Amino acid sequence: MSSPPAALPVRILGTGQALPTRVVSTAEVAALCDPSGGLTAEAAEARTGVRERRWLSGAETALTLGAEAARNALAAANLDLEDIDVLLNASGSQAQPIPDGGALLARELGLSGRAAYSLHGTCLSFLLAMQHASLLIASGQARHVLIVSTEGGSVGLNMNQPESALLIGDGAAAVVLGQAVRPGQGLHAARIETYPEGADHTRIVGGGTLRHPRDPAVQPAEYLFDMQGLGVLKLASRVVPAFLERLRPGLSSGLVGISRVIPHQASKVGLDLLRRYGWPADRVEVTLPTLGNVIAASLPLTLHGALSSGRAGEGDTLLLVGTGAGLTAGGIIFEV
Amino acid sequence: MSSPPAALPVRILGTGQALPTRVVSTAEVAALCDPSGGLTAEAAEARTGVRERRWLSGAETALTLGAEAARNALAAANLDLEDIDVLLNASGSQAQPIPDGGALLARELGLSGRAAYSLHGTCLSFLLAMQHASLLIASGQARHVLIVSTEGGSVGLNMNQPESALLIGDGAAAVVLGQAVRPGQGLHAARIETYPEGADHTRIVGGGTLRHPRDPAVQPAEYLFDMQGLGVLKLASRVVPAFLERLRPGLSSGLVGISRVIPHQASKVGLDLLRRYGWPADRVEVTLPTLGNVIAASLPLTLHGALSSGRAGEGDTLLLVGTGAGLTAGGIIFEV
Repeated sequence: MSSPPAALPVRILGTGQALPTRVVSTAEVAALCDPSGGLTAEAAEARTGVRERRWLSGAETALTLGAEAARNALAAANLDLEDIDVLLNASGSQAQPIPDGGALLARELGLSGRAAYSLHGTCLSFLLAMQHASLLIASGQARHVLIVSTEGGSVGLNMNQPESALLIGDGAAAVVLGQAVRPGQGLHAARIETYPEGADHTRIVGGGTLRHPRDPAVQPAEYLFDMQGLGVLKLASRVVPAFLERLRPGLSSGLVGISRVIPHQASKVGLDLLRRYGWPADRVEVTLPTLGNVIAASLPLTLHGALSSGRAGEGDTLLLVGTGAGLTAGGIIFEV
Repeated sequence: MSSPPAALPVRILGTGQALPTRVVSTAEVAALCDPSGGLTAEAAEARTGVRERRWLSGAETALTLGAEAARNALAAANLDLEDIDVLLNASGSQAQPIPDGGALLARELGLSGRAAYSLHGTCLSFLLAMQHASLLIASGQARHVLIVSTEGGSVGLNMNQPESALLIGDGAAAVVLGQAVRPGQGLHAARIETYPEGADHTRIVGGGTLRHPRDPAVQPAEYLFDMQGLGVLKLASRVVPAFLERLRPGLSSGLVGISRVIPHQASKVGLDLLRRYGWPADRVEVTLPTLGNVIAASLPLTLHGALSSGRAGEGDTLLLVGTGAGLTAGGIIFEV
């Protein structure tokens, strides 16, 4: 898709988050990865940039967390559940194969009779949902859209692969969108490009119809997250600059017309890569040290942090951007 | 979501399908369900309305089939792969948890650098993708969108539950959408309503983060399809008439302005239910007897059958409609 010819007139009415109660230190994950103690917390933190992350525990699930984030976003928007026309699940991890996560979140929230479904593009699902919601609202097909990104990916971490095991956290965030109230407010550009030559760099191969859990040949490790960080980095380095230029000319060498950057918190090296584009570090939001990479929830969690702290607000133009499994590069430019 | 205020000006440029080579008779499935022979093929066929269905075999996968359907749709549209701006995966079953099925289909097709992602609402995923594609094209964000629905659900059938095991088939279909060429052509209405009080009526509980394959407590049967047909039927009977009235007034008692109905092929009783709305049987497309319920691919397969046979064509107004897991009711009204 290419940039829209004109801004889609929409507005963020409220955002919210919900975090698991259990805080997991990098020392704790390092010990799980390497019980011999060879991997020190200091080395692990220096490598990943993650000091701590949250993991689901007890009765918490991706659904309870998603519903809590949704209620917080509704409260911030001063809206009731009944005001929502469409609930979009925009999560990278799946709670259950059938029914769709939209229906499962609707049940958890107590929402019935409204549209509830999913947009899915692993880590960039939230960007897809922002664009889809904006199209629904701008075309008059919905007044209020609730987007929920919720992740319980810690259950699928492979402690034999510290690179990814140290990275992933659980969490949820939600955003309510409605109609714009002034000219210029809304979605100015959206772009997604998928480079499937990187499809094996970030993957979970087991659990779908190709490697089904009923098949005895599928090994337990196939159900776990597998990331080849160097491959991701090489491919991203190659394709992202031209991608940024197509999203908005000039973006690969500076923040043309952008107040603040909300990047996907893919990894420390992923965030470091952004410096190459001449984007000042003090204009880039970072949540990686305390939340890790929360898959599709990273973008709305980081957006929520920027808006609720006042570092971004009314009139600001935000760039939400990142790369995810696929390899997919995605970005939206949004005037708050 | 509610009906759009005006038609979204889009056009079906081509459709295609791809079926597994292996034809599985109802007698064969009945014997798998009940090796004692107590369930006769005749009784099974009378109950389900399915004479035969296709199942993947050998080197066939949901991805090879989806790519074949996509190539057939592109050929019918007289377009090359390079003409596609956005590839939408609209499948109920998942080939692999990560990366997204859009990226996996893009790799299978050899498409790189274009948007590739998924819309998901189990059996109704194709309707969601049709609406999303129409919004992208009408808003100028894409010129050509390729939608692929491909299913390999036979791997997850539970032979201890003949009701569902006799129903599901594999297959794929694809549609290419582009801009309308005359007034009135396009998407006239789209509506989705989810009633999560029916979330447990159609489900696969195992395989996601709630019941993860690494959890030894998860039983093998939890990875299999589970359907409580009576519960589905009761809830659908209750909510569908009012849903149809909201989609287009009068639809619950006749085919107001509709040339032809393309229903999801949920089941024999599901199709029988349509008679209650006063829709003449000779205006309703049926593929259930030879394909079974092909999850999200049923709608585009049935659409492809109607268009390629000439039973529907240029200027006709189609109603694509159905219920799916969720429980979700969905429909679009589309002028070809």
